[in-house]
Amino acid sequence: MLADLLSKVTQVVVDPSVMAGYETDFTGRWRGRARLVVRPGSAAEVAEVLRICAAEGVPVVPQGGNTGLVGGGVPMDGEVVVSLRRLSALGPVDKAARQVTAGAGTVLSDLQRHARAAGLDFGVDLTPRDSATIGGMIATNAGGERVLRHGTTKANVVGVEAVLADGSVISRLDGLPKDNTGFDLPFAASEGTLGIITAARLRLVPYLTRRATALLGLPSPEAALAALERLRAVGSLESAEFFLPEGLALVRRHTGLPAPTRQEHAFYVLVECAAAEDPSEELHEALADVDAPETVVAADPSDRHRLWTYREAHAEAIRAEGAARKLDVGVPLPALPAFLADVPRLAGDAVPVLFGHLAEANVHVNLLGGTTDPSTAILARVAGLGGTISAEHGVGRAKAAYLTLTRSTAEIAALRAVKAALDPAGLLNPGVIFP
Amino acid sequence: MLADLLSKVTQVVVDPSVMAGYETDFTGRWRGRARLVVRPGSAAEVAEVLRICAAEGVPVVPQGGNTGLVGGGVPMDGEVVVSLRRLSALGPVDKAARQVTAGAGTVLSDLQRHARAAGLDFGVDLTPRDSATIGGMIATNAGGERVLRHGTTKANVVGVEAVLADGSVISRLDGLPKDNTGFDLPFAASEGTLGIITAARLRLVPYLTRRATALLGLPSPEAALAALERLRAVGSLESAEFFLPEGLALVRRHTGLPAPTRQEHAFYVLVECAAAEDPSEELHEALADVDAPETVVAADPSDRHRLWTYREAHAEAIRAEGAARKLDVGVPLPALPAFLADVPRLAGDAVPVLFGHLAEANVHVNLLGGTTDPSTAILARVAGLGGTISAEHGVGRAKAAYLTLTRSTAEIAALRAVKAALDPAGLLNPGVIFP
Ligand SMILES: Cc1cc2nc3c(=O)[nH]c(=O)nc-3n(C[C@H](O)[C@H](O)[C@H](O)COP(=O)(O)OP(=O)(O)OC[C@H]3O[C@@H](n4cnc5c(N)ncnc54)[C@H](O)[C@@H]3O)c2cc1C
Ligand SMILES: Cc1cc2nc3c(=O)[nH]c(=O)nc-3n(C[C@H](O)[C@H](O)[C@H](O)COP(=O)(O)OP(=O)(O)OC[C@H]3O[C@@H](n4cnc5c(N)ncnc54)[C@H](O)[C@@H]3O)c2cc1C
Repeated sequence: MLADLLSKVTQVVVDPSVMAGYETDFTGRWRGRARLVVRPGSAAEVAEVLRICAAEGVPVVPQGGNTGLVGGGVPMDGEVVVSLRRLSALGPVDKAARQVTAGAGTVLSDLQRHARAAGLDFGVDLTPRDSATIGGMIATNAGGERVLRHGTTKANVVGVEAVLADGSVISRLDGLPKDNTGFDLPFAASEGTLGIITAARLRLVPYLTRRATALLGLPSPEAALAALERLRAVGSLESAEFFLPEGLALVRRHTGLPAPTRQEHAFYVLVECAAAEDPSEELHEALADVDAPETVVAADPSDRHRLWTYREAHAEAIRAEGAARKLDVGVPLPALPAFLADVPRLAGDAVPVLFGHLAEANVHVNLLGGTTDPSTAILARVAGLGGTISAEHGVGRAKAAYLTLTRSTAEIAALRAVKAALDPAGLLNPGVIFP
Repeated sequence: MLADLLSKVTQVVVDPSVMAGYETDFTGRWRGRARLVVRPGSAAEVAEVLRICAAEGVPVVPQGGNTGLVGGGVPMDGEVVVSLRRLSALGPVDKAARQVTAGAGTVLSDLQRHARAAGLDFGVDLTPRDSATIGGMIATNAGGERVLRHGTTKANVVGVEAVLADGSVISRLDGLPKDNTGFDLPFAASEGTLGIITAARLRLVPYLTRRATALLGLPSPEAALAALERLRAVGSLESAEFFLPEGLALVRRHTGLPAPTRQEHAFYVLVECAAAEDPSEELHEALADVDAPETVVAADPSDRHRLWTYREAHAEAIRAEGAARKLDVGVPLPALPAFLADVPRLAGDAVPVLFGHLAEANVHVNLLGGTTDPSTAILARVAGLGGTISAEHGVGRAKAAYLTLTRSTAEIAALRAVKAALDPAGLLNPGVIFP
């Protein structure tokens, strides 16, 4: 029996009540049944698991922190869930090279604490920092709140260790900043379809403790883009996030926070600068050039925390309203106003709650209620504007059917060919990415 | 006949005297015979060429500026050379997004001029800037003189347009900073084995015109590493290059330049800072903390140019001595002194001339003369130190036989599987990368 074979090589969970936590996602929209859950403690154990599953012909679903929003990390029916959370070892920080090796199951906030103790930081930060894992972040090429400064996860990875479908282990953890001995295997954004990441060598950035944070109340997306253009000249700019009155109302109801501004505005932009020396003056100078009806500057860390909560509590506040349909789209920056203007009409009788990352025109579209699914109409509009149907969350199972909207037949065929080359039996995350 | 078929769809060169320029590399070590040379003027023409070559079963060798140093861009015997140089169109600079689209045949210095006119710059710079092309730089993931600040070429590419072996065109030129609809095809460092790059969307960085440049004369590699550690704290540091007395002597003989320092030193480090405001003071402060027997600071642009010539003229000066064996290795930074100390012994009766990029411990080993080939011994030592047999030049044909020194059987098998998936007939650059 599979469970017996697997329990000889690794930790196996068969208790349904324990398994349940691995079978449903954060949103509650994705749930399925796992054959069983394994919790390997080393790359070698992952390799054994894959060899056994390959021999038995049982598909596997890799899972990290299970914070993914596109159903890519939860089983459908009868797969083996491979949880990487026990692979959470952190190596010493190499201060000279500004690098560290982290197990795939390392939780982001643990990595942050570890790096910060050495005066360094990880370049990627996102709301579910207390659950999301490094492996999951690489597998989804996570974006988050610092992309405008440090890029997405792939820009912050020097190399990975991974187990392929056949159980072979490949390892690029040497941290060499230049190494052109063949192309990289494309694990970033592969969502568990090409291999199971077991560890990564990560690039670190200086830990910048002096922060200046402001919330702008603006009359329109156009005004926000004008503000962004000016703020981009600020070298220490790290984040430019946005939300709208509907989302703010939900967050306030959910958190009990007071209104952040005296008046209500059509568009809110949260900006943050970070530097070794206090960036307040630089930010103030730029804000003086920005035509904003209302600007609130954080006076102290608790104020800063409060301003961020208006933005970061969106996902929680939306979840409290019920299971929303979630889209995560990106459009060319100049097309952002047109797209935002169109969504209410396209949403039909669903209530859209929009927020996201301004600098990349990355909009998280949350659709509450509604009798029909407006996803296709909205994603088609995104495609028409030259955008992407998944900016940062990935394709998963949720968006696989829409891939053809923005990826050509030739491109999808090429991706499939690579997938088939590395996983000929289709063992790794079937149904994810590919329609 | 092949020439007839091809000349219906693109420019064909059959004149042997014109073809000769495409059949030999910069070093003179790599030469072969092409069946013919095609010079397509569009991605569509490249696609037609590949379709015809596929149908006829004729292998192709993509070629850009032909400055590659590992024999990957020159034919062996009877291939069709596909020169991309005519694909040199540059799109408008998008100042807000800091991006530009460049044809694969765009020469680096043309891109630099174009971007600089808009106040921006390309993050990668290297000596053969007047010949190397963007397509070649992506295909080799070129490094160069600014890696410590901006990373290698792949970190400066948002997306590519490429033609696959079957003639299908895939295109990711939309410039979306976040787009996780499937993994990226791994064109960086693929050296023409996976597809022919026809254009790229490039990331630009601010054009920093204020520069401060200094040459340090140091007693040892250990002293250079100590200096680097201090200089790395300078936020505007952009380059840290090194050369040795033997190379300096060749450069002086070749260029007629005077000695850069009053005394001869065992190790020279050229550092440059670049910023919007004059970085001289920041550099001076750091240099004051560095224990260097002699430091020469460039007084003006012509002085700066002269200091750079000591470093950049190495390749030319070595070539003037005859065809050198060239290795391009990287070791973990702390292992650099040990490696440099070992080379003379390992080189046997060949004369080693070493220089390179200090921050990545990337050493260009040039071997002049000698009755036996010491490459294997030197590369084995590199592998033993945890380094790479090719830091930035790529594997090409020159290093294919050594790939197994630092890449495991499983890794090579995985790379081969991807290659076979995208180019099942082995049409693209046979003999390159894979032993
Ligand atoms: C409140 C909230 C806010 C969020 N904000 C952002 C945001 O700003 N930016 C952003 O990009 N995302 C965001 N996300 C989405 C999510 O946090 C990221 O996708 C994250 O990277 C997932 O990491 P994880 O460890 O939870 O992965 P999981 O959810 O466990 O898995 C995600 C995918 O990766 C695969 N996977 C996981 N681990 C591995 C591994 N070791 N090897 C191979 N494949 C693996 C899974 O099979 C699945 O396909 C948010 C999610 C929530 C709940
Ligand atoms: C003096 C000198 C100094 C150098 N310094 C550096 C340095 O500091 N750092 C560094 O990294 N390199 C350096 N190089 C090596 C070389 O310049 C780089 O590798 C450069 O990127 C090659 O570009 P190219 O256009 O000349 O490519 P080519 O030499 O024409 O081709 C190189 C490889 O790329 C492939 N290729 C070219 N164009 C395409 C395309 N459009 N699509 C697919 N495949 C393609 C070829 O098949 C070949 O395998 C140096 C070379 C010289 C001569």
